[in-house]
Amino acid sequence: MTIEYVFAVSFVALLVAGILVRWILAQDSGTDKMREISGSIKAGAEAYLGRQYRTISIIAVITTVILVLAIRDPLNPWLGVDTGVGFMLGALASNLAGYIAMFISVRSNVRAARGAMKSVDSALKIAFRGGIVFGLAVVSLSLLGISSLFLIFNGDPRLMVGFGFGASFAALFAQLGGGIYTKAADMSADLVGKVEVGIPEDDPRNPAVIADLVGDNVGDIAGRGADLFESITAENIGAMILGVAPAVYGIFGINGLIFPLLARSSGLIGAMIGIFFVYSRKNEDPFNSLVRGLVVTGVISAAGFYFLTLVLLNGELNYFYAALVGIIAALIVAVITDYYTSYRRRPTLEIAKAAESGAAPSLVTGLAVGMESSVLFIIVIGVAILLAFWMGNGFSSLGDALDFTSPTFQRGLYGTAIATMGMLSVTPMILAMDGFGPITDNAGGILEMSGVPESAREVSDKLDSVGNTTKALTKGYGVASAALSAFLLFSSFLEVAGLKGVDLSRPSVFTGAFIGAMLIFFFSALAIKAVGKTSAVMIQEVRRQFKAMPGIMRGTEKPDYSKCVDISTKAALKNMVYPSLLIVTGPIIIGVLLGAEAAGGLLMVGTIVGVLMALFMNNVGAALDNAKKYVEAGHLGGKGSPVHAATVIGDTLGDPLKDTAGPSLHVVVKLLNTITLALAPLFIYALLH
Amino acid sequence: MTIEYVFAVSFVALLVAGILVRWILAQDSGTDKMREISGSIKAGAEAYLGRQYRTISIIAVITTVILVLAIRDPLNPWLGVDTGVGFMLGALASNLAGYIAMFISVRSNVRAARGAMKSVDSALKIAFRGGIVFGLAVVSLSLLGISSLFLIFNGDPRLMVGFGFGASFAALFAQLGGGIYTKAADMSADLVGKVEVGIPEDDPRNPAVIADLVGDNVGDIAGRGADLFESITAENIGAMILGVAPAVYGIFGINGLIFPLLARSSGLIGAMIGIFFVYSRKNEDPFNSLVRGLVVTGVISAAGFYFLTLVLLNGELNYFYAALVGIIAALIVAVITDYYTSYRRRPTLEIAKAAESGAAPSLVTGLAVGMESSVLFIIVIGVAILLAFWMGNGFSSLGDALDFTSPTFQRGLYGTAIATMGMLSVTPMILAMDGFGPITDNAGGILEMSGVPESAREVSDKLDSVGNTTKALTKGYGVASAALSAFLLFSSFLEVAGLKGVDLSRPSVFTGAFIGAMLIFFFSALAIKAVGKTSAVMIQEVRRQFKAMPGIMRGTEKPDYSKCVDISTKAALKNMVYPSLLIVTGPIIIGVLLGAEAAGGLLMVGTIVGVLMALFMNNVGAALDNAKKYVEAGHLGGKGSPVHAATVIGDTLGDPLKDTAGPSLHVVVKLLNTITLALAPLFIYALLH
Repeated sequence: MTIEYVFAVSFVALLVAGILVRWILAQDSGTDKMREISGSIKAGAEAYLGRQYRTISIIAVITTVILVLAIRDPLNPWLGVDTGVGFMLGALASNLAGYIAMFISVRSNVRAARGAMKSVDSALKIAFRGGIVFGLAVVSLSLLGISSLFLIFNGDPRLMVGFGFGASFAALFAQLGGGIYTKAADMSADLVGKVEVGIPEDDPRNPAVIADLVGDNVGDIAGRGADLFESITAENIGAMILGVAPAVYGIFGINGLIFPLLARSSGLIGAMIGIFFVYSRKNEDPFNSLVRGLVVTGVISAAGFYFLTLVLLNGELNYFYAALVGIIAALIVAVITDYYTSYRRRPTLEIAKAAESGAAPSLVTGLAVGMESSVLFIIVIGVAILLAFWMGNGFSSLGDALDFTSPTFQRGLYGTAIATMGMLSVTPMILAMDGFGPITDNAGGILEMSGVPESAREVSDKLDSVGNTTKALTKGYGVASAALSAFLLFSSFLEVAGLKGVDLSRPSVFTGAFIGAMLIFFFSALAIKAVGKTSAVMIQEVRRQFKAMPGIMRGTEKPDYSKCVDISTKAALKNMVYPSLLIVTGPIIIGVLLGAEAAGGLLMVGTIVGVLMALFMNNVGAALDNAKKYVEAGHLGGKGSPVHAATVIGDTLGDPLKDTAGPSLHVVVKLLNTITLALAPLFIYALLH
Repeated sequence: MTIEYVFAVSFVALLVAGILVRWILAQDSGTDKMREISGSIKAGAEAYLGRQYRTISIIAVITTVILVLAIRDPLNPWLGVDTGVGFMLGALASNLAGYIAMFISVRSNVRAARGAMKSVDSALKIAFRGGIVFGLAVVSLSLLGISSLFLIFNGDPRLMVGFGFGASFAALFAQLGGGIYTKAADMSADLVGKVEVGIPEDDPRNPAVIADLVGDNVGDIAGRGADLFESITAENIGAMILGVAPAVYGIFGINGLIFPLLARSSGLIGAMIGIFFVYSRKNEDPFNSLVRGLVVTGVISAAGFYFLTLVLLNGELNYFYAALVGIIAALIVAVITDYYTSYRRRPTLEIAKAAESGAAPSLVTGLAVGMESSVLFIIVIGVAILLAFWMGNGFSSLGDALDFTSPTFQRGLYGTAIATMGMLSVTPMILAMDGFGPITDNAGGILEMSGVPESAREVSDKLDSVGNTTKALTKGYGVASAALSAFLLFSSFLEVAGLKGVDLSRPSVFTGAFIGAMLIFFFSALAIKAVGKTSAVMIQEVRRQFKAMPGIMRGTEKPDYSKCVDISTKAALKNMVYPSLLIVTGPIIIGVLLGAEAAGGLLMVGTIVGVLMALFMNNVGAALDNAKKYVEAGHLGGKGSPVHAATVIGDTLGDPLKDTAGPSLHVVVKLLNTITLALAPLFIYALLH
């Protein structure tokens, strides 16, 4: 088994993605009215992404120049150039991944809408295949990029960190910008449309409705595409760096380095086969169809790990068990997320119930649920890391009294790397499930706006609620994989920075750690504020249009959608820059002033706090959203009741938490890791000491 | 200068407190009606605290037995007994501190109310002197306890950790129980009284009003008393343990150990002089009077540090500078807290402004303000730790490349200990300012309920709004001192557990750290939920009374106050146990399973996350409260407007955050530290490894 195999699988996956694109484009795109609406969404999304990528490119070019000039290593005079070029390629590939995701989603949405007019199966297939196209494309792109660099750098993964840094750098801007865009539009559309004027969701009379639909594509789709592109890229590089540790390289040689790439390829194969299992039999819950596809992918991936362990890792099956730990942890995390956010479960029902006493009791309960939702999650992640480490070194140690450079320790870490690979092996299918949500959401919006019969709306509503569940699950998965990848990258950072450990009882490290935690709070505050500020502007605009054009409400006048699209676009571009630069410069300042160990403290505690805050914000938002959905389904007084009004406040409060700040934190966690890894050479000498 | 001096100053302080109590009791206690209301508050508070202390005692006795049996040390067979006895004494002293605080506050409130009918100066003096009585008593109690143990244990501070553990153990129950009590009553009184029935705050027709007023005494007063008793106790013990480090003990001998006790005595002297500077000249803002008292105390304390450095520390003035760093950091923290929570400043005004678009935008802004409020705070704490460390070792190192046992490192740590002493030296005055708030709040309630002329109400309102500001400031101070004390205790923990460091890149330590962060979220969730659940029950009861007794609203029938007092009492006692035990058992389980270093990870990251979450919750609550006050002052539509309704939702949401979960986290942070310190002998051998 060699690296050529990785190229082959990636090309096949791209080919399959291409065939699926042709299939999707061949589907009926509905009535003229539907095509017109879809065209507006497409135009808005393309215009926004174009401008976003231009902004990111300018910042990335400046950063590249700084990297080339600043990174100096006497042993490797080309390190700065290598890092800079890798960075540029990583940023480019990340943008490409986001663009492909958006490209296919704005074409699938209208066809899925048309499909909903026929059957659940038809709509499900189109929406899911739209999702899997970018799942396959994103993973193949990452594999192709890393494998090429692996060949160029002669198998030294430490030279590839620039690529990971570039990918997370671009991903942060994309996720944050997209998140601001989508939630500012969503909040404004809801607050004026639903609450003040009393028109339903996605009503064509709402001036912010197109901006809202564009937002799903640039935030949820393009943003998450860049996010997971970055996850798998960083994880692969981190795992390969652990593969060059003497105790691992000494036994497995180059096999230990290409194992991560081949393991990912087996996930691609699993997903390509899994596609055939996603269909909806009569009356089958569409959610089950998606889960069936995921399980098939997981089983084939596991089989791939078994085979690869036999061929590449001398048949040491303890590594296969470590991979299973990762796969199983991913499933448990999904179940936990479902428990805390689904309205069939106690926590969300309690939020809805508390709304009977008013908005405040409901929100108080919501915050408590969000905080509590981290408990089991963290225990699962902790146990998974310990188990995988223990399996990695042949069930001999949890590492507490070991030296960092001991073979037992290094082999244990390689075990945690393989568990992370296991968890991330199902990424293509997860991306498909994740993309499914916004595509069906868009399809529903298009149907509502084009005034089609109620029956089609029912199909899309059904799929939309499944999409809400899958979106929450895949976010939980995103956080879990960020936590595991980060732990890999910690170890890689110590390796690259030449540290023996990160000792929190030192004042400089404690200060760094405190600042790491603080950066997470600061970033979240800025992200949330950006949404608040933008929606305040847009709310004024929407109110103005309703007032200036009375024909809108009567349906005789068309609202000026482009004005709202424009507000979101400008605000997102403006507000994504400052918080992102904060995350980039924070670790650099601490590293340069206080040294590599303080930067390590920042990175590790920033990661822990980032994971917890992301969980909190994602789940509080999802639970509040679903509490509202529960009431809208006719419980506790139903739509229009005071209880409903209370839950609408909760939903709106949760929006920027769950779709702007929360998902951006996934990327922040990984960016903190790749940035310290790439810039470790700068931190060797602390300015203050 | 010897330890006898500490006893002398403590006794003088107790004497002064006694004289002030006589003075307060000699003041006019108003009309019969006022005395009757005050009597109900007193009876409710005494009954609750009695039952609370009984519950704590039972749990404390069980814990003592476990400590005596479980702690085994071959070098010191009596360690278990010593720890157990210290624990019992610590818990007892903490309860006593809380009881004294409550005793004086329920007697000052009615006299301050009567004073408000005369002049601002009269009410200010009574309320402030009520606060300073327990400020002096709490600090003297702590000093007497520690000094006695110091003599009993022959000057080995490591045997005194049981006392600190006992104090924090009892404090957590007291703060959490009191916090649940006060906020459940407050939320219910507001939601039904203000929002549903439309009667003003503290209206005698509200069945929950007495429970609300009792809550101020058992939550804000008794709870905070126990909290700060614990802070200064833990800090003194931690500083003394650092004083026995070879590099410090080698130079200063026993002087380095008694320095912390004498430094605290100089703070007591400062406060006793500061009392005379708190009076209100004509038209003077009462806030300025309090600040004048604080500044005098700070200056005298600083002079005391200067003198003690000359006498005890060979005149090494760098330690004096470290103390100044602590005092100045305390002042800056107060300014930052004021900025983020006062309605004269931009952040709170933005929250009020956002309420024009509805409750959700206002809450979103509030959450962002709360998160952002940690930024400058953390930078100040980080810089203070680094500066003090650098001063401690004679401006030679920030400690990054030093060995933990090197003299430079140990002397640096002693510098951070002295900075913490500096910060905590003004504690008596801070406690007085903190107690001032609930006493004037109670006074206002008594005036409102007894139907006195509007003019007296104006005086008490003025003092009440000053009390709100001082409460927010002293909470900021509480968090800052918790952060600094915790850093001291980290180092003591490493010393006692024989660790070389706490290395986050180990899987067991990383897992411990993750669990530490998670415990903070879990505890907060439980605390918030307890308030939510209790208030749900009480809301039903209040609604029931209004319905069953129509005479209440007409003023012809008296509501059944005792029913609400009873609900709060039972719920607080029931719900304080489980979260507190969670915090106690969490570190023990991790320490026993994964070892001392993993427990260290839990403790350090738990501390960092606890500090940030406490800041977030305290400040989000205070800012939302003040945004409401701003609207109530007649801005943006004033009382009764939709903007007001939106800010009332925000205030109610913030209540359990700022007065239950937030302040309890101060105690949690310190309890995590004292518990790991006391139980370190149990963690030497990890069960899993």
